[in-house]
Amino acid sequence: MSFNRRDFLKTSSAAAVASALPSSPYDVLTKNRPENFRSGRMKLSFKPFTIELKHVFTLSVMSRTTTPVVLTEVEYNGVVGYGEASMPPYLGESHESAMKFLSKVDLSKYENPFELEKILSDIDAIEAKNPAAKASVDIALHDLVGKLLNQNWCTIWGFDKTKAPHTTFTIAIDTPDVVRQKVKEAEGFKILKVKLGKSKESDREMIETIRSMSDVPLTADPNQGWKDKNYALEMAHWLKEKNVKYIEQPLPKEMRDDIAWITERSPLPILADEAFQRLSDMRNIQGAYSGVVIKLMKSTGMREAHKMVLLARALGLKIMLGCMTETSCAISAASHLSPMVDWADLDGALLIKNDVFEGMKVVDGKCVLSEGPGVGVKKL
Amino acid sequence: MSFNRRDFLKTSSAAAVASALPSSPYDVLTKNRPENFRSGRMKLSFKPFTIELKHVFTLSVMSRTTTPVVLTEVEYNGVVGYGEASMPPYLGESHESAMKFLSKVDLSKYENPFELEKILSDIDAIEAKNPAAKASVDIALHDLVGKLLNQNWCTIWGFDKTKAPHTTFTIAIDTPDVVRQKVKEAEGFKILKVKLGKSKESDREMIETIRSMSDVPLTADPNQGWKDKNYALEMAHWLKEKNVKYIEQPLPKEMRDDIAWITERSPLPILADEAFQRLSDMRNIQGAYSGVVIKLMKSTGMREAHKMVLLARALGLKIMLGCMTETSCAISAASHLSPMVDWADLDGALLIKNDVFEGMKVVDGKCVLSEGPGVGVKKL
Repeated sequence: MSFNRRDFLKTSSAAAVASALPSSPYDVLTKNRPENFRSGRMKLSFKPFTIELKHVFTLSVMSRTTTPVVLTEVEYNGVVGYGEASMPPYLGESHESAMKFLSKVDLSKYENPFELEKILSDIDAIEAKNPAAKASVDIALHDLVGKLLNQNWCTIWGFDKTKAPHTTFTIAIDTPDVVRQKVKEAEGFKILKVKLGKSKESDREMIETIRSMSDVPLTADPNQGWKDKNYALEMAHWLKEKNVKYIEQPLPKEMRDDIAWITERSPLPILADEAFQRLSDMRNIQGAYSGVVIKLMKSTGMREAHKMVLLARALGLKIMLGCMTETSCAISAASHLSPMVDWADLDGALLIKNDVFEGMKVVDGKCVLSEGPGVGVKKL
Repeated sequence: MSFNRRDFLKTSSAAAVASALPSSPYDVLTKNRPENFRSGRMKLSFKPFTIELKHVFTLSVMSRTTTPVVLTEVEYNGVVGYGEASMPPYLGESHESAMKFLSKVDLSKYENPFELEKILSDIDAIEAKNPAAKASVDIALHDLVGKLLNQNWCTIWGFDKTKAPHTTFTIAIDTPDVVRQKVKEAEGFKILKVKLGKSKESDREMIETIRSMSDVPLTADPNQGWKDKNYALEMAHWLKEKNVKYIEQPLPKEMRDDIAWITERSPLPILADEAFQRLSDMRNIQGAYSGVVIKLMKSTGMREAHKMVLLARALGLKIMLGCMTETSCAISAASHLSPMVDWADLDGALLIKNDVFEGMKVVDGKCVLSEGPGVGVKKL
């Protein structure tokens, strides 16, 4: 198929219009000169970085004050895409494992950065696991490709950015004094996420402490910390009375039948988090949970997370879009999916002291997507 | 978030690179002038057209020599996207029903053509059914948005166009003489699709006639024409011996349990066609079929078909990408999904006398995607 001059002019006109759209504040200024038709190669670089948390962060499984991350860049003909791997230690990845994995990724062999399906399948096949390290390349590639298309991913995926939801702000397990301080900090958020699962007494104390100060809706995340289905169901009823909206992963993921039993009886949606890592876990989720928790650091990045969103919606499952403690790079990457989810927990960058990117903002508790192309971040 | 001049220059550079990619033969020539920042409105227009078939087309349910289609255009700031509804009469749509439906579609109320999720959900909600009429708007919008991004959809979706499969060429039910003539015409095709389901004698005669002339692999489509599970299973074994690769919709879709019984025992994959119209049918397919047949005229267009492809792959279902008799407009639109499917039947434009578009080509039986932006078609 060959195009004549009239078609070329039509296409030029199309590009002119693209630059005039409200979703892109950019114009495109290029010349039809042969030297622009270079055939570049992608180059991946990466470096370790340590996120410092504002507060000691306590889950049912551990406490910590830092999170190791790896920051990636993919450069292609002078355009740079940014990515990030965030690796809370209890999930099994580390600076060392990520650096080792990334050293095996050779992007220079691909001619066309747009072929994400093939490139990311190849990277996934290098070695099992390493989801955060894989996500760091996926995010950088999406940032690059979005910049090459001069649009951000919310736009490329065809979503309506005004539909971005409110985000929860996470209250980790702590003493009533610290919890009260955090609830004070969380003023302006329209919904709070409460970490539970340490003990029966702590569960009640966390909720009661928050309810003594605030009546915003809550969400509950025991992180597999409960071990008994009867207790979990009893808590589901009690939490519903306390205006909790859903419960993440109540029991260890191995207890699938018990979880299905709870889901069938629970007045609150039961979401799969630890039980839902990759797209292939979906078959095991159906029938046992009411919904899924999607995180880029589990899904190996934006491409699989986008597929998860479409799949979950098609199957009638609820969706919570979550995060780890991350810089605004990975948080902004996730934010482009947020118009398509039921709930979001994208507060990861708000919990850290030393963010190195600017991107998605939280305004009055609502996710406000960046207008920039790609994942929409600016390096600070 | 505000961007400074350095960011602007980076983005300009990104756009320059995009235009240099092998997948886009176009360059982008625009100026950063205020008059380019117009805020346009989309305008939909449409007209009836009648496709003339090269041969009388006989399925298990009827015969015909023409197919009514409606050709659509969406114009936005001087850029035109093309679409098409193809309506074989037995599926219930017609020139009249499509024109009536399209007259209710008001695209002028949307400011941003990129927000396909919202726009297409709204259109879907105007009235039930009308999948081909809906597809004609979906395709025109995708053509428009792809032109605005200056890329075709295979590229935007991140697929590798070199992975496009061979297409079957369809041999409709006819006398041995006509079948022999069609098999001769189909020389060069690496796989043939055989319509079955008229009668036991006709089924055998169709296959034997083709096998007397050619040993290329075949696929079988009884179009719900078989009524008995034992006959269907017996045919599956016989067809496997005849080097048939899969069977579409063997029994009426209402006979789900019988079909599940066949699928469990069949040596060939059993694909859902009539039983798989919309994404929401997926839940009913699981467990009863080995795969699905996706067609833009059933799915309401490219956006839902793309979701179907991702969903089917995630659930481990085989995918056949099919078509109606269509011009190269709708065929090319479908072709952008073809790198992600197991089998394709995209011969619809080859069966007609009066094509009004140029786009996807079939070269030595293989789908060769057009390089043009959007759905990649040129009006003839």
